[in-house]
Amino acid sequence: MLTFYFAPGSCALASLIALEESGLAYEHRRLNLANGDQRQPDYLAINPKGRVPALVTDRGVITENIAIMAYVAQIAPAAKLAPLDDPFEFAQMQSFNGYIASTVHVNHSHKGRGYRWTDDAAAIETMKAKVPQTMTEAFALIEDKMLKGPWVMGEQYTIADGYLFTMETWLPGDGVDRSQFAKVSDHYARMHERPAVQRALAVEKG
Amino acid sequence: MLTFYFAPGSCALASLIALEESGLAYEHRRLNLANGDQRQPDYLAINPKGRVPALVTDRGVITENIAIMAYVAQIAPAAKLAPLDDPFEFAQMQSFNGYIASTVHVNHSHKGRGYRWTDDAAAIETMKAKVPQTMTEAFALIEDKMLKGPWVMGEQYTIADGYLFTMETWLPGDGVDRSQFAKVSDHYARMHERPAVQRALAVEKG
Ligand SMILES: N[C@@H](CCC(=O)N[C@@H](CS)C(=O)NCC(=O)O)C(=O)O
Ligand SMILES: N[C@@H](CCC(=O)N[C@@H](CS)C(=O)NCC(=O)O)C(=O)O
Repeated sequence: MLTFYFAPGSCALASLIALEESGLAYEHRRLNLANGDQRQPDYLAINPKGRVPALVTDRGVITENIAIMAYVAQIAPAAKLAPLDDPFEFAQMQSFNGYIASTVHVNHSHKGRGYRWTDDAAAIETMKAKVPQTMTEAFALIEDKMLKGPWVMGEQYTIADGYLFTMETWLPGDGVDRSQFAKVSDHYARMHERPAVQRALAVEKG
Repeated sequence: MLTFYFAPGSCALASLIALEESGLAYEHRRLNLANGDQRQPDYLAINPKGRVPALVTDRGVITENIAIMAYVAQIAPAAKLAPLDDPFEFAQMQSFNGYIASTVHVNHSHKGRGYRWTDDAAAIETMKAKVPQTMTEAFALIEDKMLKGPWVMGEQYTIADGYLFTMETWLPGDGVDRSQFAKVSDHYARMHERPAVQRALAVEKG
């Protein structure tokens, strides 16, 4: 049995989409981040980092989108969510996911979570002010150099698409006009057509 | 042929150690980050992100430590650098690596690269001031909840160990006393005993 811990509007959407695409049976548990559910003792016992997502399996808990999504792809090979038999292509996909996790998501976090890296209220405001620029620069790189189209890896849909889509949903709130990026805009529209994405968004809404 | 682009003192050490552990033949090219080599057109043609590491293969370039290290482990299975046949264990390892890439390395970067996230000189100073705290908190979590010992994954050495070691080498410069963490200190000492780690450090020194 798989149990997935997530929160609406969070990066957990990436793993939620992977689960819906996989066809695996799973249960989901919703956290309210604004209420601080992620810092309650019962959740810290599952993920001591106090973050979502977390996937509870029969063998233990997996955290970090990059690890959960690859795991889902590996245990549901029929869904073809990753180039599992080609180390070079797998590395290209994980490189994309690594850039999202270590750079794009981190840029975004400087809007609402600046307190992680400074204790100064004025400094936090200056971080917020730069988010439109850092997210625009990251998406310019994605548009020009990384997104092969129509999917991240080209003709084959992979877990990287759900991760990119999650970042795409954040752009308006980050002060970035998505329409300046033609391939990204096309990707965002295509994602909405996928039944698994529609189901994941419905799970988020609750 | 594999060609590895790195810079001394950088996170590229993690992938450099993986390459040395793998037994694969590779060439290396040294960049000087202080000189801005990473922003020169010839290097941007290899990695448009302007960062190290990058691994050039016959099929193309791989960036991001988390992707390069897993690729090295997969194409050199005899070196047993990852639990390649067990998706759950592989996910645990990639979860560890994902935490390093998205949180520990990012905390550290707020010391020397604060300009990525703010344009304000005073704000950058407040970020620097918090690095000892954020790195201490991250290593407390690693010590208490993540590092199984003696290696990250337990009895089996993996690519995660070279990544952790790279962060361990940064602690004194980040104002963190490594000796407060017993398992981390033991890990750091053990890593120095490995011939591949000694070779990687020699390559770094040049
Ligand atoms: N690198 C992690 C990031 C996890 C993360 O930061 N999650 C956020 C939501 S997008 C969270 O739980 N924040 C709650 C908090 O900071 O209190 C991953 O990809 O899983
Ligand atoms: N998430 C990337 C991070 C790469 C990165 O930030 N590299 C740093 C060195 S530790 C760099 O090249 N910095 C040069 C610069 O910022 O100009 C990875 O793991 O490969």
